[in-house]
Amino acid sequence: MNRLFHVPLSPFCRKVRLSLAEKKIEVELVEEKYWEADPDFMRRNPAGKVPVLKLDGKMMSESTAICEYLEEANPSPTLMPRGIQERYEMRRIVAWFDDKFHHEVTSKLLYERVNKKMMGQGYPDSKNIKMGAKAIKYHLDYMGWILDQRRWLAGDMMTLADFAAAAHLSCLDYISDVDWNRNATVKDWYAKIKSRPAFRSILADQVSGFPPPAHYADLDF
Amino acid sequence: MNRLFHVPLSPFCRKVRLSLAEKKIEVELVEEKYWEADPDFMRRNPAGKVPVLKLDGKMMSESTAICEYLEEANPSPTLMPRGIQERYEMRRIVAWFDDKFHHEVTSKLLYERVNKKMMGQGYPDSKNIKMGAKAIKYHLDYMGWILDQRRWLAGDMMTLADFAAAAHLSCLDYISDVDWNRNATVKDWYAKIKSRPAFRSILADQVSGFPPPAHYADLDF
Repeated sequence: MNRLFHVPLSPFCRKVRLSLAEKKIEVELVEEKYWEADPDFMRRNPAGKVPVLKLDGKMMSESTAICEYLEEANPSPTLMPRGIQERYEMRRIVAWFDDKFHHEVTSKLLYERVNKKMMGQGYPDSKNIKMGAKAIKYHLDYMGWILDQRRWLAGDMMTLADFAAAAHLSCLDYISDVDWNRNATVKDWYAKIKSRPAFRSILADQVSGFPPPAHYADLDF
Repeated sequence: MNRLFHVPLSPFCRKVRLSLAEKKIEVELVEEKYWEADPDFMRRNPAGKVPVLKLDGKMMSESTAICEYLEEANPSPTLMPRGIQERYEMRRIVAWFDDKFHHEVTSKLLYERVNKKMMGQGYPDSKNIKMGAKAIKYHLDYMGWILDQRRWLAGDMMTLADFAAAAHLSCLDYISDVDWNRNATVKDWYAKIKSRPAFRSILADQVSGFPPPAHYADLDF
C-alpha cells in the first residue's frame, strides 16, 4: 500500500498530495507528528520531516524531489511545461514559494498560530504575525502581476508552480490569513485551482482544535 | 556578456559556479552586496538574493532552478543520472544540503562568523556556533555512510548532488570549520572533487578581512 506520512497543514505535504491526486496515484494518508521524532519515523526519513512518501515499497523525502520524480515516472497528465525556459520559470516559482514565501509568510503566520500550539511551544509572537500579515500583501500583488500576463503562474498550463502556491495559500486560508479581496486575478486563479478534483481532500482537512472558517471549503468563496 | 551576480562564500552561488564551469559556460563574476538591496539589483531579482545569472540576455534566479536549466539547455557533460530513481536521489541530496545542512550547519557557522560581520550585524552568537559545530559531525558521518556504498553521493557518477555538498563544505572549509580527519571516505571524495578544473575559481576566492587557511586551496590537504 502506498502511504504518505504528512500533517494536514503543511504546504510541502499539500504540494505532494496535489501532485499525487492530479496523477491519480492513490495513497493512504498517515498523520505523522514529526516533531516527536518517533524512532520508526526517523528510520523512514533521517531528515525528520514530512512529507515522506512510501511508494512501491520505497521511502522518499523532500517534497520537490518527490514531485519531480512523480512527473518523470508518471508523465501523464503532465504538471511541467515542455519548453526548457518555461520549465525554468516553473522551478523558479516553486522555489519562490517554498523558500521565500515560506520564510516571509507561512512560517510567520501558520507556524506561529498553529504549529507552535500543536508542538507545545507556547503562544504566537505578535511581531512575527505582523511581519507575515504585511509580507503576504506584497506576495499577493506579485502573483497578481504575474497572472495578469499569464493564465497560470508559469505560463499557459497549470503546473507544479500553481500547486506550490496553492499549497501555501490553502494552509493560510484555513486560518483566515488570506485577503481574497486584495486582488481579483489571484482570487480567480485560486477559484480555478480550488475546484479541481485533486483539491477535494485538502478542502476536507480538519485539524483538531483549529476548525476551518466556512469559506475555506466553499468553491464560491 | 554572461554574468553571475554572486558573493564568494555563498554555497548557492558556488553550486551554480561549479555547474557553469563543468559545462564550460563562461561568465563574468560580479560581486553583489545583496543585503544592501541596491535598486538595480532588486530589478534584476525581486527576491533580493544571489545568485542571479544573466545568460543570453535573460535574468535567472533560484540556484537549483538555474542548475536544472543549465542541464536541460547544455546536457553535455551531464550532471544528472539517466535513471529516474537516481535522479530522485540526486534531487533529494541537493535539497538535503541546501535545506537541512544549510539550516543546521552553514547558517550556524558561516553566517555567524562571516556574513554577520560583513552585513554589520554584530558578533557571532556562540550558541549558534556550538550548534553548527555539533551538527556538522552528524552530517559528515551521514555523507561517509552514503559514500561507503557509492562512488559519488547520488550513485556511480558525479552529479549536482556532489556540487551542492561541495559548495557548502568548501565555504565552511574557507573558515576552517570542516574536520577532514573525521571521515577518510569523505576526505577522499572532497579531494577528488577539489582537483577538478571546475573547482579552480572557487579555490582562488579571497574575501577581504577573512584570509583563507593554507589548506583551503591545497589539493593535498
